[in-house]
Amino acid sequence: MSTLRKPLSPILSPGDLAPWYESMRVECLLNPGVFRLDGRIGLILRVAERPAQAEGELSFPYYSPEGEIKVRRISRQDPGLDLSDPRVINWRGDDYLTTISYLRLVFSEDGIHFHEDPAYPPLLPEGKYESFGIEDCRVALIGGRWYLTYTAVSPNGVTVGMRSTSDWKSFTNHGVILPPHNKDCALFEEKVGGKYLMLHRPSSPEIGGNYIWLAESPDLLHWGNHRCLARTREGSWDSARVGAGCSPIRTPEGWLMIYHGADRDNRYCLGAMLLDTDDPSIVLARGQEPLLSPQMPYEKEGFFGNVVFSNGQIVDGDRITMYYGASDQFICRAELSVNEILDSLKQGK
Amino acid sequence: MSTLRKPLSPILSPGDLAPWYESMRVECLLNPGVFRLDGRIGLILRVAERPAQAEGELSFPYYSPEGEIKVRRISRQDPGLDLSDPRVINWRGDDYLTTISYLRLVFSEDGIHFHEDPAYPPLLPEGKYESFGIEDCRVALIGGRWYLTYTAVSPNGVTVGMRSTSDWKSFTNHGVILPPHNKDCALFEEKVGGKYLMLHRPSSPEIGGNYIWLAESPDLLHWGNHRCLARTREGSWDSARVGAGCSPIRTPEGWLMIYHGADRDNRYCLGAMLLDTDDPSIVLARGQEPLLSPQMPYEKEGFFGNVVFSNGQIVDGDRITMYYGASDQFICRAELSVNEILDSLKQGK
Repeated sequence: MSTLRKPLSPILSPGDLAPWYESMRVECLLNPGVFRLDGRIGLILRVAERPAQAEGELSFPYYSPEGEIKVRRISRQDPGLDLSDPRVINWRGDDYLTTISYLRLVFSEDGIHFHEDPAYPPLLPEGKYESFGIEDCRVALIGGRWYLTYTAVSPNGVTVGMRSTSDWKSFTNHGVILPPHNKDCALFEEKVGGKYLMLHRPSSPEIGGNYIWLAESPDLLHWGNHRCLARTREGSWDSARVGAGCSPIRTPEGWLMIYHGADRDNRYCLGAMLLDTDDPSIVLARGQEPLLSPQMPYEKEGFFGNVVFSNGQIVDGDRITMYYGASDQFICRAELSVNEILDSLKQGK
Repeated sequence: MSTLRKPLSPILSPGDLAPWYESMRVECLLNPGVFRLDGRIGLILRVAERPAQAEGELSFPYYSPEGEIKVRRISRQDPGLDLSDPRVINWRGDDYLTTISYLRLVFSEDGIHFHEDPAYPPLLPEGKYESFGIEDCRVALIGGRWYLTYTAVSPNGVTVGMRSTSDWKSFTNHGVILPPHNKDCALFEEKVGGKYLMLHRPSSPEIGGNYIWLAESPDLLHWGNHRCLARTREGSWDSARVGAGCSPIRTPEGWLMIYHGADRDNRYCLGAMLLDTDDPSIVLARGQEPLLSPQMPYEKEGFFGNVVFSNGQIVDGDRITMYYGASDQFICRAELSVNEILDSLKQGK
């Protein structure tokens, strides 16, 4: 299959953006949502910023009671510091993260060269369910309005938050639409059987796993009839976790869904599934091989290497222009063919 | 506070019921939902049954492709057997549980002596989200119809299922209303601010914990606007997990919620919280001390000792007749006073 990385090198790197927060630096660019606006292609990037680290000190961002991101600097010898859990910094009994993630908009006329536009400020964390940051935003255009579903992280857990907009300048915050632990939420861009649909990825501390689920809604705000759509596959590239990319693509043969899968070594690849047109809870086909796996140097090495992860694409007839994050550090671009993917699924590849 | 265990001994023990499944035995009676029907009090018990175990063999229940519970007997020397995870039996790559739970109805004229009624058969697991069993059913009477929310366990994870009935003989299955990992779901019995409300308890594999959340719905089927209501309290009897009991009680001072809390030694107690009448996401008061803690021999020793757990009660004016599970084995009964609980919350106890 002709999975064409175009252009070959990353199209965006952390050095391309100035930090938004004072005294921080841009550590990572991750996993953009994609949309079209006024003839341009827009990316909504996840940007992770980290305070500069001084010798003998540990500096980390925190959310002030006034709702502002500030930086705390403490000595590495501070007796209140507990670094026994590698995922978090515990200081005086409270958990903090090393970086803060938010969402930033860039635009392009050719889909390759992206730049900021001062008319479109970033989307920052808001309130008690986003105080550790917001991540990996999917964009769905439904009824002339864009719905943004993203991972909202706070001491309350990892949830799915939603905002919507008609102009990318003012946004309505719809709160937490899926409780912990959930992420990778992608809305269908049209109703099926009279209901809105979403793909989502709950995770279990015991029994079950990191599987893709389907849910339905009368209004995009309230969700029910949850069904497990796809589980991990033992011994495969998607053995440890799977999660939806962005909105599935309607084709004459069903809904084409691009998804990510990871194995127990945390190697992330992208694959494809075909869902029944009228009842997308039925998986008609699932690829044996990945569509895209970490092969280029910038996909194999970076902030968190051996990762390709996509949650945004533009579809134009047969052509999918997919934007993806590489090594949790760079933004890349690839072109794929809908028909080639469908053919490969039919051939059982 | 006069928390009166009445009568003192358990009102139901496993030996009081014959097993439902052939060649199984009743291992545990657990955590009943409670309702009134035709002048009687009904309990919907969780019953856990286990196959008799022969020397050198391991026998466990499984769900056949035809949807029936069967028993598999294998040698303890079977090379396909993996018992490394204490929570499950893994055999030839698939997980099984040691017991199967289902829901069984018993009735009483005096609220103390319960008996079965052949007109009301048990509720058995149905379909792929209940194949490991159904547990801990809450009952809410809304608009003349009873809504049953319960824990549905399967290889897909631990979810909340819902069925409803108008006669306790035929039931509508509404499927999975909350995705993994979730349990302890209690509906409010009336709308607040034009919306149905529920309490639920998602659990996180990382960041967050085992906290009580509030959600709202236009139709009882689809749920959104999830908000974290109450977290665990470090150093307290409810330091490791908390979860709602049954439907909160409307009082002139707010919604009175009885909940369970456990510490890191898995000692389960019952406590109280008061929620704002118009906005139940606001916790007005939370008791420092438990309402009920394991003290009696049958509460301290049993299938899983040091547990009192309630998800069902009858309210009659000031009197709460609470039914509760003890040591995951027995069904007990206690009487409490609404006003005494409210007074204790006001006094900060």
